[in-house]
Amino acid sequence: MIVVKGGVTAPKGFLASGVKAGIKRSGRADLALLYSEVPAVAAAAFTTNRFQASPIKVSRIHLKNKEHQAIIVNSGNANCANGRIGDRDALKMTEFIGKALLLDNREVLVASTGIIGVYLPLEKIEKAVPELIEGLSGTKGACFAGAIMTTDTMKKELAVKVKLGKAAVTIGGACKGVGMIYPDMKTEGHPSASLRIVPSKRKRVEGHATMLCFISTDAAITKRMLGASLDEAIGGSFNMISVDGDMSTNDSCFIIANGLAENREINDKGGDYRKFTKALKFVTGELAKQLARDGEGATKFIEISVTGAKSELDAKAIARKISTSNLLKCAVCGEDPNWGRIVAAAGSSGVSFDPDKVDLYLGSLKALSNGMSVKGLDKDKAHKLFTKRDVYIKVDLKSGLHKATAWTCDFSREYVAINSKYST
Amino acid sequence: MIVVKGGVTAPKGFLASGVKAGIKRSGRADLALLYSEVPAVAAAAFTTNRFQASPIKVSRIHLKNKEHQAIIVNSGNANCANGRIGDRDALKMTEFIGKALLLDNREVLVASTGIIGVYLPLEKIEKAVPELIEGLSGTKGACFAGAIMTTDTMKKELAVKVKLGKAAVTIGGACKGVGMIYPDMKTEGHPSASLRIVPSKRKRVEGHATMLCFISTDAAITKRMLGASLDEAIGGSFNMISVDGDMSTNDSCFIIANGLAENREINDKGGDYRKFTKALKFVTGELAKQLARDGEGATKFIEISVTGAKSELDAKAIARKISTSNLLKCAVCGEDPNWGRIVAAAGSSGVSFDPDKVDLYLGSLKALSNGMSVKGLDKDKAHKLFTKRDVYIKVDLKSGLHKATAWTCDFSREYVAINSKYST
Repeated sequence: MIVVKGGVTAPKGFLASGVKAGIKRSGRADLALLYSEVPAVAAAAFTTNRFQASPIKVSRIHLKNKEHQAIIVNSGNANCANGRIGDRDALKMTEFIGKALLLDNREVLVASTGIIGVYLPLEKIEKAVPELIEGLSGTKGACFAGAIMTTDTMKKELAVKVKLGKAAVTIGGACKGVGMIYPDMKTEGHPSASLRIVPSKRKRVEGHATMLCFISTDAAITKRMLGASLDEAIGGSFNMISVDGDMSTNDSCFIIANGLAENREINDKGGDYRKFTKALKFVTGELAKQLARDGEGATKFIEISVTGAKSELDAKAIARKISTSNLLKCAVCGEDPNWGRIVAAAGSSGVSFDPDKVDLYLGSLKALSNGMSVKGLDKDKAHKLFTKRDVYIKVDLKSGLHKATAWTCDFSREYVAINSKYST
Repeated sequence: MIVVKGGVTAPKGFLASGVKAGIKRSGRADLALLYSEVPAVAAAAFTTNRFQASPIKVSRIHLKNKEHQAIIVNSGNANCANGRIGDRDALKMTEFIGKALLLDNREVLVASTGIIGVYLPLEKIEKAVPELIEGLSGTKGACFAGAIMTTDTMKKELAVKVKLGKAAVTIGGACKGVGMIYPDMKTEGHPSASLRIVPSKRKRVEGHATMLCFISTDAAITKRMLGASLDEAIGGSFNMISVDGDMSTNDSCFIIANGLAENREINDKGGDYRKFTKALKFVTGELAKQLARDGEGATKFIEISVTGAKSELDAKAIARKISTSNLLKCAVCGEDPNWGRIVAAAGSSGVSFDPDKVDLYLGSLKALSNGMSVKGLDKDKAHKLFTKRDVYIKVDLKSGLHKATAWTCDFSREYVAINSKYST
């Protein structure tokens, strides 16, 4: 597998665009479209929040269709808690695209991100659709990545190429969302390289920052295998990040595959499925980490590994609990290696383990050994580890063979500043 | 029931003191003692954190004893994650007091609050014990309340008197802890009035702020009924508050009853038990709310009521989830009535409910009706409600008869400032 240029338009046959429809008060791009030139299969994972935004309700129904060709996305408005009106508006969004591209509505999927409880300015969206369609291009992945942003400070996109038999399959992705980030999505229906980021100096603008991710691929794969692969990929990536522990009503991860790479269709969990899934895991993993890294107000990136757990579920629960500790995140912000806060967070995860066996490492420095504070811990060394941009924490339960990793960012005054003024 | 002067020394036969042992770097009072002049019965509730501080381990064993007469408390050091050495040190603390007051060690309970993973300066404590004993007085409840503080800005104490038959029973309490506050304690083994607060202008000083609560009463009550009453009282008070969603390793709530009020001993769940428990609920409820109100960096107090739930457990889970929403707490800090964040938090509690039935109120203002954003919501009025010192939020699920209330504070930049520099 190799990393290639571009994002969602890197795979064959995908076009994208992004325009300014006037949904955002800032006037920035807020409407995006991803389109496959040929019929494709799609799968998606959605938030497990009890309050589900209207676009999720509509997309869930549309996903029952066999084929899909387009995904329309707006930022600046979540279209959530808007009841029947919201559902109708989300459906209308798919109708606008269906009509313009001569598709059945059910071949169009929809996603939204922004403020909750405000009705969608549907007329603005309708008005912008012609420009959106006209703008479709095989080189506009970055426009798409830009138009889906809310409080993000940079576009997040990535593409990889992987050999399946004699065919070269490309997987491209774009994602957004750096606040209200604590996804736990459920699927409906490796390589080495580094992430492409298009940095930008623009300031954070309006959002409720749901996470949205769109993945395109030219792989030939059945809808069922595509869903299975996505399910494997999100479990260790998006479902392991946190910015603030607040789960959104709109979290969505879509994948759409059009078969233009002409590989032998993946229809079982054989070698090609495993290769494809490995590449997909890389894409979702790198994109997820970028969300945590760009977390609202973040100055640092924190990786939390839990090893030696009795089950993967236990390891995940502990890693995630630590990743949502406000006290730890404040300590990291202040470069204060106050590791007692990690101990407290680990112990409050609800997972049963023997505290007298636990080892805790800050980077490679052991702070806790068999549940006991290490005497003579080098405080300067510990502090130095916390001065780095990336902070690594490891908890070894020494009680089993399972492990998990979670990612988060520090908690700064800037986070409070961003989120204490928003809707007004 | 009436509120009376004083805290833990308000009931008959209780003496208290607080001294500066030098555990806190600030030099402030950090060692406290509560003493009953006659043998008493005791019960306690402790954190459900898997990592339990050494004083909890020792107190849990000592609670198996029938009678108790003293509780020693230090602030500035949690004595947690210190393994066997910590356990020995906590036991030593009870031995110091037992020796000085001619009690069996097992008649002495112990609690600690402060930084995790630092060994206790036991020699300083031993050295301060004579002064601590000498200082014991029936008018030093406030000294006790002061010496247990960490980042608290004010002492928190309260006492009430309730008639049981012809006897007047007094219940007094003191508590501390305004950070690392998300208690979920488990018990081992109403009237109207207002809380007494002794304000102070002192700045927040060193802490990990576990919650600790000490309740004394001169009621005659069996150890078993005392435990049952405490269990009822903490469920709707301390176990419903949050400052930051971080559960401590040291949370403890002790109650000690010496029978000097000469009421007919409460030995079943009859009328006297109910009266006593009602008064105790008032004491724990008011003290718990004061912890949330004084939360680190807090500028506002938030009360979250959930009604119409299928079970009390459901109502509690939703109320607690909302109370830990960083996004909501930031919005309240900025006086921004961004109620969509409440919707998102409610939906992520893991409780199953019908979102299309839910009503949401900001104060008395309805923002969501049957899961739908109320058109024409008076934004100025909503904003005005959020400018108040106390913010009231109500979620009505309209799906059952159960309810619960949680309390929290807003999330300010000051919280981050307090917690980004501490151990170093």
